[in-house]
Amino acid sequence: MGDSMGLGFLLVQLGRLMAVRTVGHNQATMNGLREKVLTLDTMNACVKRVEYAVRGPIVLRALELEQELSQGVKKPFTEVIRANIGDAHAMGQKPITFLRQVLALCVHPDLQNSPDFPEDAKRKARSILQACGGHSLGAYSNSSGIQPIREHVAQYIQRRDGGIPADPNNIFLSTGASDAIVTVLKLLVAGEGRCRTGVLIPIPQYPLYSAALAELDAVQVDYYLDEDRAWALDVAELRRALCQARGHCLPRVLCIINPGNPTGQVQTRECIEAVIRFAFEERLFLMADEVRAGARGRGGGPARAPALTPAPARPQVYQDNVYAEGSQFHSFKKVLMEMGPPYSTQQELASFHSISKGYMGECGLRGGYMEVVNMDPAVQQQMQKLVSVRLCPPLPGQVALDVVVSPPEPSDPSFAQFQAEKQEVLAQLAAKAKLTEQVFNEAPGIRCNPVQGAMYSFPRIQLPPRAVRRAKELGQAPDMFFCLRLLEETGICVVPGCGFGQREGTYHFRMTILPAAEKLRPLLEKLSQFHAKFTREYS
Amino acid sequence: MGDSMGLGFLLVQLGRLMAVRTVGHNQATMNGLREKVLTLDTMNACVKRVEYAVRGPIVLRALELEQELSQGVKKPFTEVIRANIGDAHAMGQKPITFLRQVLALCVHPDLQNSPDFPEDAKRKARSILQACGGHSLGAYSNSSGIQPIREHVAQYIQRRDGGIPADPNNIFLSTGASDAIVTVLKLLVAGEGRCRTGVLIPIPQYPLYSAALAELDAVQVDYYLDEDRAWALDVAELRRALCQARGHCLPRVLCIINPGNPTGQVQTRECIEAVIRFAFEERLFLMADEVRAGARGRGGGPARAPALTPAPARPQVYQDNVYAEGSQFHSFKKVLMEMGPPYSTQQELASFHSISKGYMGECGLRGGYMEVVNMDPAVQQQMQKLVSVRLCPPLPGQVALDVVVSPPEPSDPSFAQFQAEKQEVLAQLAAKAKLTEQVFNEAPGIRCNPVQGAMYSFPRIQLPPRAVRRAKELGQAPDMFFCLRLLEETGICVVPGCGFGQREGTYHFRMTILPAAEKLRPLLEKLSQFHAKFTREYS
Repeated sequence: MGDSMGLGFLLVQLGRLMAVRTVGHNQATMNGLREKVLTLDTMNACVKRVEYAVRGPIVLRALELEQELSQGVKKPFTEVIRANIGDAHAMGQKPITFLRQVLALCVHPDLQNSPDFPEDAKRKARSILQACGGHSLGAYSNSSGIQPIREHVAQYIQRRDGGIPADPNNIFLSTGASDAIVTVLKLLVAGEGRCRTGVLIPIPQYPLYSAALAELDAVQVDYYLDEDRAWALDVAELRRALCQARGHCLPRVLCIINPGNPTGQVQTRECIEAVIRFAFEERLFLMADEVRAGARGRGGGPARAPALTPAPARPQVYQDNVYAEGSQFHSFKKVLMEMGPPYSTQQELASFHSISKGYMGECGLRGGYMEVVNMDPAVQQQMQKLVSVRLCPPLPGQVALDVVVSPPEPSDPSFAQFQAEKQEVLAQLAAKAKLTEQVFNEAPGIRCNPVQGAMYSFPRIQLPPRAVRRAKELGQAPDMFFCLRLLEETGICVVPGCGFGQREGTYHFRMTILPAAEKLRPLLEKLSQFHAKFTREYS
Repeated sequence: MGDSMGLGFLLVQLGRLMAVRTVGHNQATMNGLREKVLTLDTMNACVKRVEYAVRGPIVLRALELEQELSQGVKKPFTEVIRANIGDAHAMGQKPITFLRQVLALCVHPDLQNSPDFPEDAKRKARSILQACGGHSLGAYSNSSGIQPIREHVAQYIQRRDGGIPADPNNIFLSTGASDAIVTVLKLLVAGEGRCRTGVLIPIPQYPLYSAALAELDAVQVDYYLDEDRAWALDVAELRRALCQARGHCLPRVLCIINPGNPTGQVQTRECIEAVIRFAFEERLFLMADEVRAGARGRGGGPARAPALTPAPARPQVYQDNVYAEGSQFHSFKKVLMEMGPPYSTQQELASFHSISKGYMGECGLRGGYMEVVNMDPAVQQQMQKLVSVRLCPPLPGQVALDVVVSPPEPSDPSFAQFQAEKQEVLAQLAAKAKLTEQVFNEAPGIRCNPVQGAMYSFPRIQLPPRAVRRAKELGQAPDMFFCLRLLEETGICVVPGCGFGQREGTYHFRMTILPAAEKLRPLLEKLSQFHAKFTREYS
């Protein structure tokens, strides 16, 4: 028996067992009974762990409700209001005329003969097509984008940052910002077990980060924003998260979202400096998601007056998606460069931008760019190679980006209209940000931090203990339970805080401030009233 | 001493060492000397292994040469000819007018008032915008694409496949085809060590596959196409590859590229049936890359006459990118469905299509779609979730796809021009395919299989032993050496066979057949002459 239990014997037995299984499997096959090759059990477990609340179950339910409404099913509301996603045009915001004129001219160059298009749009379209293969948007571009557009982006950054130069070779155009963020994370993820790359992300966060980290099997390291101080970022909290993480992974990356998503706060310059110093000392690669910083025009206006100064009488000039008085957007790149060596010469930084979230709101065109600073040239080559596998970002998105970074000059025929349209969008966003904060803070049990920038509010809601218990019985997060009920009873679609992360025992939802002005107030009031009713119902 | 060498002691010593290293590191930091966080040594090793020849060193060198030429540097040629990539518009192919009219109308709806646009283009644009959020291409679409376009794709497939139905819920629009291919591979990659997913791919292959597999850390399993039989796919060879792979991985996926890339062959119906039977028996998920099958118009023409029948006198109607007489494109979906159960009801299949490679050649818009068949519904949900993280495919690409799958009807004002433009492109491609084969086969030491479909030739070249030795001294693959020399001396940019894979000791290059007719013949002759000169030089 001793020998018969040896390795050889076991292998033979194993072989027999497997042969039996194979026969069984083949018979099953012949009988038409067989398992799929690809099932929940056999698929990539990392993909299975991915969660993406912004388009999760609540959005699927919203879709169903829309279909039911269109089939004439009676509901307590007549339309679903998608306040779940920062989709400006879907909410009725009009595209910037000049941007679409240039794009139409690029798509259909015969329009060069049309008297309905201004000269500067025609000129811009010609110069873009000049740089395209075969002078067509149908040709691939270089993988990092059309060269003159990269140069325009670099010039734009330089203007934004008060003259600090940007190198076009460090600019990579992308398919929206998500694409570029995932590309950089991909480069950074390495190691096994306790040496696996850890990535610090803010909580609450935009769930692209948690989704990408799950897919890449990297270690998500949470640091909490301070809700009591308007979602401020605190270096002590970064340090706590880092120290704790070092026990089980190798933290190498620090992600910052500024302006915040979903939280809408804008970081102070002092905070950015402290974060950069921290990243430098702790040897962390910095990723600055500045997607929601919007985009300034050429020249721009003066810096915003601090909060205590009376507001100026002349119409306010909005430089970007930053509304709150006293708040001003500072790019990480600018602050880093102004800090001087060793930071400016050594700290690795990638920052991300998009055409989806500024005054132009061109989400559907999928355009964006990233700038890398102090990246190891050999790694940058590797990144170049990696993006080349996907060939190139979509050219219409590149065209739109070009308009954003090199808009009409004051002497151009389209300048006045361009500025007027842009200011109109920004002024409306500012008004809506204020209105949102105001209406929510008037409601008992809802507390909303100032929406300083971007296009989201992330109010905190109190939920009665009985509602929390009921949600748990249903296997739902309490704010998911609240948001689903809100959707069913009012048609308002917002994303529960659990989809972004939040401190244990606190509950939130994210709502865009994008609905048209005349819709927003009733929407906010309806939402507040529903919360009051819900609270009564479960008290 | 015994005790002092125990585990505790070692840990203490280790701690001390690490403390010293940390201090050393901090001092280095203070002195301004420190390593980057992200270096070749610390980056994702899988990304480092990615290779992508189509945009590799030879293309970078081509870029440099173009810059040198534009700076007035003297070269033995006046322009770089990019025959390395299937980029039709870059090679001078004109966009299809109707497609661009519809796109311009979608981008800039004011054009609805223009008398220069035909009614059917206006109608189509209106119906597309009707399905967009806020009636704008600037809104996000559903992650799987605009619903009516998915329905048009399903109807198109149904027509293509002689009435076999397609379900719009199984259609996922994508950012070019690469995006969708990588998405499906991502789902399929699982397991560790000998259980790691193996993916069978043809050699030669389009290097997206090897690149994606390297990045996903899946096991690439090569099966060789038979060059002597016009790159035919042989099930015996599939079986050999599979059996060999089973020793070290878990093969779960079989990728087919039809028409071939880089090899340009079109598979026979018999071959497709045999492949499906093989995949079914061996429990392999089938991925059919039919990107280069082009796109037929509504109705199309009769099936091509077999090779032995005399060619019809009336102008040939090209249904797709398949030129060779006797060759006809069969979709895997159609053959699978016609094989009946258990194949049609159980074999899992994903097939991939693109707007980059048909008669429209709209690479820069990044549009495409995939259809999945017999996919586990739970997995399909997971896929839906995964694509939602990237929000949506670019809307201009979706619009272009819509035109391709639902082109003008015979009764529409744009029908005649649309058909004429399409037939013109296809007729030219057919002529260029024939010319390529002919000129290359007249050259000693070059042998070119028929270019039956797609837009590439992949001729085999003989290289003298001394050239092979010289290449090895330089650390280059012999055909890379050849192609680099070709580029430097003639400005012709083609991709060496080593970038696609080939049988040991054989050498090839891939060249598109896309250059304009008047340029193609001199190009082919110049290339043949260079090969003759190169051969003499190294004999």
